[in-house]
Amino acid sequence: MLPPARLAFAAALLLILQPPAPAVAARPIVAGKPAPSEAAATARWLAAQNTWGVLSTISSELSGAPFGNVVSYSDGVPGEGHGIPYFYLTTLDPTARDALEDERTSFTLSEFPLGTCGKIDPENPTCAKLTLTGELKMVDLQSSEADLAKSALFTKHPEMKDWPKNHHFQIFKLEIENIFLIDWFGGPKPIDPSEYLEYGRNQGPLRSS
Amino acid sequence: MLPPARLAFAAALLLILQPPAPAVAARPIVAGKPAPSEAAATARWLAAQNTWGVLSTISSELSGAPFGNVVSYSDGVPGEGHGIPYFYLTTLDPTARDALEDERTSFTLSEFPLGTCGKIDPENPTCAKLTLTGELKMVDLQSSEADLAKSALFTKHPEMKDWPKNHHFQIFKLEIENIFLIDWFGGPKPIDPSEYLEYGRNQGPLRSS
Repeated sequence: MLPPARLAFAAALLLILQPPAPAVAARPIVAGKPAPSEAAATARWLAAQNTWGVLSTISSELSGAPFGNVVSYSDGVPGEGHGIPYFYLTTLDPTARDALEDERTSFTLSEFPLGTCGKIDPENPTCAKLTLTGELKMVDLQSSEADLAKSALFTKHPEMKDWPKNHHFQIFKLEIENIFLIDWFGGPKPIDPSEYLEYGRNQGPLRSS
Repeated sequence: MLPPARLAFAAALLLILQPPAPAVAARPIVAGKPAPSEAAATARWLAAQNTWGVLSTISSELSGAPFGNVVSYSDGVPGEGHGIPYFYLTTLDPTARDALEDERTSFTLSEFPLGTCGKIDPENPTCAKLTLTGELKMVDLQSSEADLAKSALFTKHPEMKDWPKNHHFQIFKLEIENIFLIDWFGGPKPIDPSEYLEYGRNQGPLRSS
């Protein structure tokens, strides 16, 4: 039984000593997990490394209750994430229907499925968690943004391009207004959406795996 | 001594007359993924096998937007899940604060992190996903339910018992009102919460994982 201070130390030691485990789907903007003090970098790393998360909407069918749904996403082709999550959704599913009625949405990611938390509990603050809150918008399929989003999605999720045409999948994106990141002790780290989106823009080519 | 036919009849009568097992009765869940046609079994399997998910609340800080947060949970000690997810939350975190203002909550789980989806995409309907919607309630720490919940949580998440006392972690549970399960093509499977909670209750000893 460890007191909190020792627990923190043990967690820190684990993070330092543990070699980066291979991610479930390794597509980092930087190869390893950024330091806890690098909040924007950590948030972007989580967005680039994960391939699925939970999209929460205000349910039109359940009288306004929050409704979380498992979805795949991509923020860019592997090694070139831009931070904006794109989704491929059909109105056969309640999430897209909800967003068309009320755009307020959050998208939640965990470091845990990447394998880099080791034996640290998923709820432990050193196992990073990210919630992006904003508005879920449909992307015009004729736009150049839609081409980029399709490329980002279909590269990370190859089977999507063969999903049934008559299900009328559409591209959606989350316009981020608020960022909630926990990656260490001491509460959530405030990150301005513009800081998050601009991270890495002027750093030259980023390493990709 | 009763003749065999009467003995069988008496046994059957006993089974019929037996009062419903308390919610805390051990109902181990089968080790492997149930068939797609077994909706309640699949939902209970997802709840028993996962150790973390996303809890979505109505955010009091973000003007009523849905807010999904990564949390650990347990529905029972390993091999004896009961289907009700218990959480260990602190009001230092927005999720618990939100629930105390507005109990409407959903809890979302994916089959993907269990590793049983193989190369199937996390959004593919055959990679099962479960959303339990209802009300998030604080459990009285003096109740016998709290003792069971603590045992369920601390067995699956051993570090929880050493989490800082001054963070005032409390036990919460989701009182389930609606179940959304996708585990195959053809849309969500309707499951009545009572069917979900009663699953396995009268099936005798089941294999545990």
